[in-house]
Amino acid sequence: MKFSFKNDYSEGCHPNILEALIQSNLNQQAGYGEDEYSLQAKKLIKEKIKNENSDVYLVSGGTQANLIVISSILRPYQCVISAAPGHILNNETGAIEATGHKVLSIETQDGKLRPSDIVPVLESHTNVPHQVMPKLVYISNSTELGTVYLAQELEELSIFCRQNGLYLFMDGARLGHGLTSEISDLTLERVAELTDIFYLGGTKNGALIGEAIVINHKDLQPDFAFNIKQKGALLAKGRLLGIQFMELMKDDLYFDLAKHANIQAMKIKNAMKERGIQFLSDTYTNQIFPIISNELIEILSEHFEFYVWKKIDEQSSAIRLITSWNTGDEAVERFIEMFHAKI
Amino acid sequence: MKFSFKNDYSEGCHPNILEALIQSNLNQQAGYGEDEYSLQAKKLIKEKIKNENSDVYLVSGGTQANLIVISSILRPYQCVISAAPGHILNNETGAIEATGHKVLSIETQDGKLRPSDIVPVLESHTNVPHQVMPKLVYISNSTELGTVYLAQELEELSIFCRQNGLYLFMDGARLGHGLTSEISDLTLERVAELTDIFYLGGTKNGALIGEAIVINHKDLQPDFAFNIKQKGALLAKGRLLGIQFMELMKDDLYFDLAKHANIQAMKIKNAMKERGIQFLSDTYTNQIFPIISNELIEILSEHFEFYVWKKIDEQSSAIRLITSWNTGDEAVERFIEMFHAKI
Amino acid sequence: MKFSFKNDYSEGCHPNILEALIQSNLNQQAGYGEDEYSLQAKKLIKEKIKNENSDVYLVSGGTQANLIVISSILRPYQCVISAAPGHILNNETGAIEATGHKVLSIETQDGKLRPSDIVPVLESHTNVPHQVMPKLVYISNSTELGTVYLAQELEELSIFCRQNGLYLFMDGARLGHGLTSEISDLTLERVAELTDIFYLGGTKNGALIGEAIVINHKDLQPDFAFNIKQKGALLAKGRLLGIQFMELMKDDLYFDLAKHANIQAMKIKNAMKERGIQFLSDTYTNQIFPIISNELIEILSEHFEFYVWKKIDEQSSAIRLITSWNTGDEAVERFIEMFHAKI
Amino acid sequence: MKFSFKNDYSEGCHPNILEALIQSNLNQQAGYGEDEYSLQAKKLIKEKIKNENSDVYLVSGGTQANLIVISSILRPYQCVISAAPGHILNNETGAIEATGHKVLSIETQDGKLRPSDIVPVLESHTNVPHQVMPKLVYISNSTELGTVYLAQELEELSIFCRQNGLYLFMDGARLGHGLTSEISDLTLERVAELTDIFYLGGTKNGALIGEAIVINHKDLQPDFAFNIKQKGALLAKGRLLGIQFMELMKDDLYFDLAKHANIQAMKIKNAMKERGIQFLSDTYTNQIFPIISNELIEILSEHFEFYVWKKIDEQSSAIRLITSWNTGDEAVERFIEMFHAKI
Repeated sequence: MKFSFKNDYSEGCHPNILEALIQSNLNQQAGYGEDEYSLQAKKLIKEKIKNENSDVYLVSGGTQANLIVISSILRPYQCVISAAPGHILNNETGAIEATGHKVLSIETQDGKLRPSDIVPVLESHTNVPHQVMPKLVYISNSTELGTVYLAQELEELSIFCRQNGLYLFMDGARLGHGLTSEISDLTLERVAELTDIFYLGGTKNGALIGEAIVINHKDLQPDFAFNIKQKGALLAKGRLLGIQFMELMKDDLYFDLAKHANIQAMKIKNAMKERGIQFLSDTYTNQIFPIISNELIEILSEHFEFYVWKKIDEQSSAIRLITSWNTGDEAVERFIEMFHAKI
Repeated sequence: MKFSFKNDYSEGCHPNILEALIQSNLNQQAGYGEDEYSLQAKKLIKEKIKNENSDVYLVSGGTQANLIVISSILRPYQCVISAAPGHILNNETGAIEATGHKVLSIETQDGKLRPSDIVPVLESHTNVPHQVMPKLVYISNSTELGTVYLAQELEELSIFCRQNGLYLFMDGARLGHGLTSEISDLTLERVAELTDIFYLGGTKNGALIGEAIVINHKDLQPDFAFNIKQKGALLAKGRLLGIQFMELMKDDLYFDLAKHANIQAMKIKNAMKERGIQFLSDTYTNQIFPIISNELIEILSEHFEFYVWKKIDEQSSAIRLITSWNTGDEAVERFIEMFHAKI
Repeated sequence: MKFSFKNDYSEGCHPNILEALIQSNLNQQAGYGEDEYSLQAKKLIKEKIKNENSDVYLVSGGTQANLIVISSILRPYQCVISAAPGHILNNETGAIEATGHKVLSIETQDGKLRPSDIVPVLESHTNVPHQVMPKLVYISNSTELGTVYLAQELEELSIFCRQNGLYLFMDGARLGHGLTSEISDLTLERVAELTDIFYLGGTKNGALIGEAIVINHKDLQPDFAFNIKQKGALLAKGRLLGIQFMELMKDDLYFDLAKHANIQAMKIKNAMKERGIQFLSDTYTNQIFPIISNELIEILSEHFEFYVWKKIDEQSSAIRLITSWNTGDEAVERFIEMFHAKI
Repeated sequence: MKFSFKNDYSEGCHPNILEALIQSNLNQQAGYGEDEYSLQAKKLIKEKIKNENSDVYLVSGGTQANLIVISSILRPYQCVISAAPGHILNNETGAIEATGHKVLSIETQDGKLRPSDIVPVLESHTNVPHQVMPKLVYISNSTELGTVYLAQELEELSIFCRQNGLYLFMDGARLGHGLTSEISDLTLERVAELTDIFYLGGTKNGALIGEAIVINHKDLQPDFAFNIKQKGALLAKGRLLGIQFMELMKDDLYFDLAKHANIQAMKIKNAMKERGIQFLSDTYTNQIFPIISNELIEILSEHFEFYVWKKIDEQSSAIRLITSWNTGDEAVERFIEMFHAKI
């Protein structure tokens, strides 16, 4: 069996979670997120962001979180702005539009949005009432290209949004990886201060399923649970989500797992860099996009699974390698070894 | 801690499932339902219904299954018909309407639909194009009132639907309980023959989450996966669903668990019946609705949890008792004992 | 050619409107409702309701007005309440549900809603977040059954709605007929005070097309034009709507036309009543529902067009007769004559 | 009062239409498009396209036509493709997305789509089921930039669509102008052969309101009227639409009006071209986009109304001039005179 670097959801879950599932299994609990594990998980998250006034809800996955959050915020004629590589634009089968809202796409180099990217969108949407009204800015951290927001970047974006009557929403499917990146100077607490709503991704960081939506802006809090239920996202056995986030939030497990994934990716990145390999984007998280020759791709493919991401020219392509909380040293070393031998 | 008869999703999952989660945990698998466990689960289901031409998809919960199925079938101007107690009418926060479709409600005594119930709806919806077009009939088995469809009833309904250009969809959140009821003469295979689409509920029958949608009608099969993804129901770690249904479908675990729940409920029902207690509906599944005095309700409430379902008069109310795959003899016996002592 | 009592939109428009179309035809005007005629029409409406703080918008028809108003007010999980005969429930092809919202139906005798009708709906929708949240009450005046709201009835309903956090919306497709009914003690000004939003119907009262939406509640006013545009209801030549309402609002033309229609209907009603005919509902507007023998229906049908509304028994049915701003004395007299001759 | 070149819907309607409204005004007619005028209008359109198997429906405006057509064709997970300047992308307040569907934007030089533009979109949408499925191609003729499709271009696009399972929809808000352009070699009959569905715009070509939707593909015809009603577009007095299209389709009035508008625009274009003025796009219909100095813009603005369309540099901008069926020689001559005097 080939080792897979295809994504960070190839394995099951962290053993602590399995153990907690076993221990709690026959305890009778209230349904629909009113179980004691969910309450505990929410408490731990509020402690970590140091804000007991935020509301926390647990749902199953990223597309689900995105469509619930966005459709709960926007009025029918309002739209959301996203960088062109945004998950909601390309990988969710029109989930946002299916709730009735346009997603405006902005081209960027690195998958990040800056105020200067958004200004032209606002300026070109002033023909009232013939155009949609931009009301929400969607960003990912780490982004779909593996890049991360620095504190100053998020601060500037946050200020800009508030000045322009825009809500700011961070898709944190890989928030652990973003915050534990070696170049990141952001904290979870700061993220909660600077965004109106965001989520902590569990699925890509050691959980079986689960994203924790954190609502910081008072105006976005009322009645949120109705949206979760209506979109089919309220699990009868909410305990399944509660137990997982309770475990991930204990000590710093959530961040330790993400950091491990980042470190493994950086090992490969650095090994390749030393040999002069170029990358599609300069990432410091668990996704890397090295550009290598087609011959090398073929050889590596015999022993490892990964996506060929983008054709660069006739001789070479960028591949995508993703590491996870469970990517062991042995797999990384074998990959580097193979790379060294064959380049 | 009081024992709860509030619902059939108070506990975790059957131990076989936990064991399989442990065994498979670190195997790398493809995402989005392409893992080997999901493939195996689907194969087992097709074997059980003896129809390899049906398509099977696994999703998280009942509301999710309902909204995906219904919105995938109907054109914008078409509607779905449901008995008045139908889950989609009362307990899903307008999830079906949120996808754009009206749900027409039909009053019935026992929560079941018969052709004679539907004829008037068809007759009163002929003012083209000023009214919605009925196109789909939604039924539950067992129903929200705990009743079950007999083979002849389902056959007549199926024939009627085909003759009238209506699709027939069975919500099987409690299908195990319906089919293993002591009065049921239906089989899973026959359900698959008589419906166009149905699902096997896992959440209320020993799984952590999960419903298995089975599409029998050829016209409803193409592109179904797009709908799952768009509604946020395609789990990255589809393995979680696959493992559960793989275990539930092994031997007859799914049916054994449901039968156990039914038997436990019947023990309580019979004990009460012997003492002359009346019931809101005459059920043979894991839900019973005994009508008892308010004094008795108060006493029982001190030791057990259950819902007071409906006020009957000043002295008495119907309560709802639900048993599950995990309701042990001891809890049942204690309940009966208490009832005997206090009546 | 048989004279038609089928509806109040069989003819074109009042001659004053045609004349105004001719006079204004070649004047260049701004598009999208910014023309001088629309501005003038809105000014006249605000004067008639004695409230310059209300907002007025002109759209084409009743279904369009209903779907725009309702979808502009409700959040995704909220629903609207309607009496069972409500136009939005039965005659709009699921237009409201197509915007994502459930319409809750309340059985009533006379097509009107009273606080006591709504209380049980509120009481049975408290299972948060598993049920839709009632937020809007939809009423028609005159109703689909030809009945009208008296001042005290509307006042009680208005107070109840405000006390319960519900918005009150009056469908005024036949508001002229409702207010000029001989039994009505309501005025347009009072309607504007007691409702949060309503519309004045033009299509059924002498216009070619057109309904004037009046928004009284401050919270419902912002950004309303976006909804009109998004639903395809913003006419490039808004002048067509403006000219019509400008003419209808001059002096009391709007009310004169409605009153004429009412009077003609009452003539027929009284002639029938004198001969002992019973009616399906006791109406004082331009719709009457006499119950007559099938033989008489057949004879009258040879000379007049009308709808057979409801079978009463084997021998008789209720028919619906509608008069309009243009129903002349001659047609009414001929009908009464024929009735007298054949009964 | 300044003469306006701002758009082609500044005036009322062609006198023939007014005359027909007067003549028909008091004839009682069936509602909802079943009147004799609508039937006659549909008959005339089918004769002109020489296809009695097409279905014709009349609605009020372009945004309405677009949203009804597109939402009637697509399944929830399917999307429509449009050139970047497409009206549905920029000027309809997200009307298409509000029906649940994504609009994919393609950059083009001239507002027209060619197979080579669409191929990359199809190639980048193969990640089933994670992306929307392209199913419909939306084009405008004349386009939003004033350009027109030549017969060969439309033929190639039509063949491509059929080969790739895509429906082809032509927005004909300015179809008269497109077909009567001096460079056009397309006919209405050929448009009907090459598209699956299209519409003939009335609003911008001499009607008060109205677009005539023509459905050529058999699969798109069933139940279409339901969609019209559900979206609030079925006028009670459908006669208003019928009378207008009956008049426009008599002889060649529709095309004569459009040709007149084109000729007036070409007079101005040629006068400017002779003096070396450049244009934003090389148009041969009733829209022209000359690039002139800011000084000249200011002077012309004192006597004429028009939009400043796009800033070119610090000294000059493109303006948009639109002529209509009613733009007289005198206005054109005055404009050219002023231009000559001031350049």
